[in-house]
Amino acid sequence: MRALRKQMREQGIDAMLVTHLPDVRYVCGFTGSNAALAVTAKRAAMFTDGRYTSQSKEETLGARVVIAKKSALREACAWLEEPGVAAAYFDPEQTTVAALEIMRDALSKGKRRGFFQALKKPIVSELRMVKDADELLLMERAALLGCNLFTAVLPHMQAGVTESEIAADLEFFARSMGAEGMSFETIVASGKRSALPHGRATTAKVPGRGFVTLDFGVILNGYCSDMTRTVHMGKPGREEQSAYEAVLEAQEAAVAAVKPGATCGEVDEAARSVLRGAKLDKYFTHSTGHGVGIEIHESPRVAAEQKQVLEPGMVITIEPGVYIEGKFGIRIEDMVAVTKSGGKILTPAPKAMIQL
Amino acid sequence: MRALRKQMREQGIDAMLVTHLPDVRYVCGFTGSNAALAVTAKRAAMFTDGRYTSQSKEETLGARVVIAKKSALREACAWLEEPGVAAAYFDPEQTTVAALEIMRDALSKGKRRGFFQALKKPIVSELRMVKDADELLLMERAALLGCNLFTAVLPHMQAGVTESEIAADLEFFARSMGAEGMSFETIVASGKRSALPHGRATTAKVPGRGFVTLDFGVILNGYCSDMTRTVHMGKPGREEQSAYEAVLEAQEAAVAAVKPGATCGEVDEAARSVLRGAKLDKYFTHSTGHGVGIEIHESPRVAAEQKQVLEPGMVITIEPGVYIEGKFGIRIEDMVAVTKSGGKILTPAPKAMIQL
Repeated sequence: MRALRKQMREQGIDAMLVTHLPDVRYVCGFTGSNAALAVTAKRAAMFTDGRYTSQSKEETLGARVVIAKKSALREACAWLEEPGVAAAYFDPEQTTVAALEIMRDALSKGKRRGFFQALKKPIVSELRMVKDADELLLMERAALLGCNLFTAVLPHMQAGVTESEIAADLEFFARSMGAEGMSFETIVASGKRSALPHGRATTAKVPGRGFVTLDFGVILNGYCSDMTRTVHMGKPGREEQSAYEAVLEAQEAAVAAVKPGATCGEVDEAARSVLRGAKLDKYFTHSTGHGVGIEIHESPRVAAEQKQVLEPGMVITIEPGVYIEGKFGIRIEDMVAVTKSGGKILTPAPKAMIQL
Repeated sequence: MRALRKQMREQGIDAMLVTHLPDVRYVCGFTGSNAALAVTAKRAAMFTDGRYTSQSKEETLGARVVIAKKSALREACAWLEEPGVAAAYFDPEQTTVAALEIMRDALSKGKRRGFFQALKKPIVSELRMVKDADELLLMERAALLGCNLFTAVLPHMQAGVTESEIAADLEFFARSMGAEGMSFETIVASGKRSALPHGRATTAKVPGRGFVTLDFGVILNGYCSDMTRTVHMGKPGREEQSAYEAVLEAQEAAVAAVKPGATCGEVDEAARSVLRGAKLDKYFTHSTGHGVGIEIHESPRVAAEQKQVLEPGMVITIEPGVYIEGKFGIRIEDMVAVTKSGGKILTPAPKAMIQL
């Protein structure tokens, strides 16, 4: 709340309406599924509904809790209309056209025009991009738990086992080790399916020979982990071996490029240029990574030409891959925290090719 | 696609842009995480990115697939600007203020004003509200799988086991039985925590005596299930017993109120009035239910004063509860399909109080 108010002052913003749930959680701690947080220079109120009467009081810090009778959003807007507030700002990336309509409609007639203004910069997501020491500790723990899952599931990966069974094992271990859940739908893509960058676990059986890509993450204390490893069942052919080495080299080059002052575009290019050298860049069909934190996908985007500069405290994924349709796919992904001197890998599982 | 075009014709809509991913899946089958579907009276094109080159071709029906070079959304907008299309409609509930800005910016200068129009009625969500025979079959299967989880997890529910362990078991069984994943974060709320309507599973231990609420759902073939049962560890006291009976009676009354022609508000009132009779209505702090399908929360809302009329093919939850802070909570939830003659329960697990 303090960091938010500081930004608001610096940007000359009197009042803000925060409705994106991860943003609400970040600013005031409330984790319920319905919330509208109204913040002015001096006051703050968090509106939710009757399902969260006790939870909201337990969790919310720095804002008065109001249990809305009808609509949390409408009541938050009406509350913002206090004398002295000329305009209230919202994040246009997190506000639907319909919600904006409701927000305006909740105001008294004279205020409807121009009271709500779209933020030029998404203040809360920019704050969330740089993690503080407490958050970094939570993220390290989440990442390490993810790592441990990989180690735990390896003995279960055998030819004939279905992708779903492997996902079931991963998810069971996650819960057993204390995770609140998975941070996204577990990807287990085996054999030719490894060429699908987003191959959800299916009833397909792991083949006796071929790659299996595991991409998974947990939520621990509200923070997400994300990692990918690709293992090989049986002995890889020469093409598979050399493609794997190229992806690994690309991944390590991008990790090495992480440092304060580097741009996200430069990190992306570090991976892409290695694959270009190996003539595999046309098979690298996505960006190199993304920020991660309370949400699995956050700012910054680690993609070609992105000018965002890395700062200590940011946590990003580095996940280049190659996907050759009808043949195979490989992706290797770590979570990397930007430190004062470079990048620190939060997911220290082995990356050299594992043959099972 | 055919049903969508029929609605478009009836409502005098030349062209539409569909970007909400469950809507895209519903209309053309594509399940990727980046999509913009553009539909005119005669043509349709589904824009995604290079991660989905092979998957999009496999899945998409009734629309040409275009792998966008930069932005799927921008390319879809440019495509819509064909000669003869005067205006294209979007769903304001599913479009952010920032996305609308991008959509307008993707058009040639002359078109920017007024080309994109907000739909008055959310055509695709209204279509999705009424399931066809194929969908109903998938939903029955998903619901039944959910039901079987409840049976499977009961022997694991013992005093001293943590809520997380119970969630882990449920989720492992779900995967083992073929589910793609859970449809929402599993709720296991034991003892006094059962008074939290949305009590996520924690490391709290199941007490020797008290209620435990299990609220969980699976995703099977893309369709969500949702059910809740509340069991009692040890012997319940008189207050617990009578509250349970009141909730059960309320739940059954609402199920009995489900029929074509009834409004959602009437179904809600059927549950609420039973709890009013038992002087427990002030503890029933949420609405009676919601539609369910490709998403866990869909139209219609089954809440007080909702005028939406039930039609055969709709699938809703009926889930009244009472939550007495510091004491206990109880919720009982079924999925109910609206049939020609009434309502059909899709989650036939026992509802009489189970003592463990």
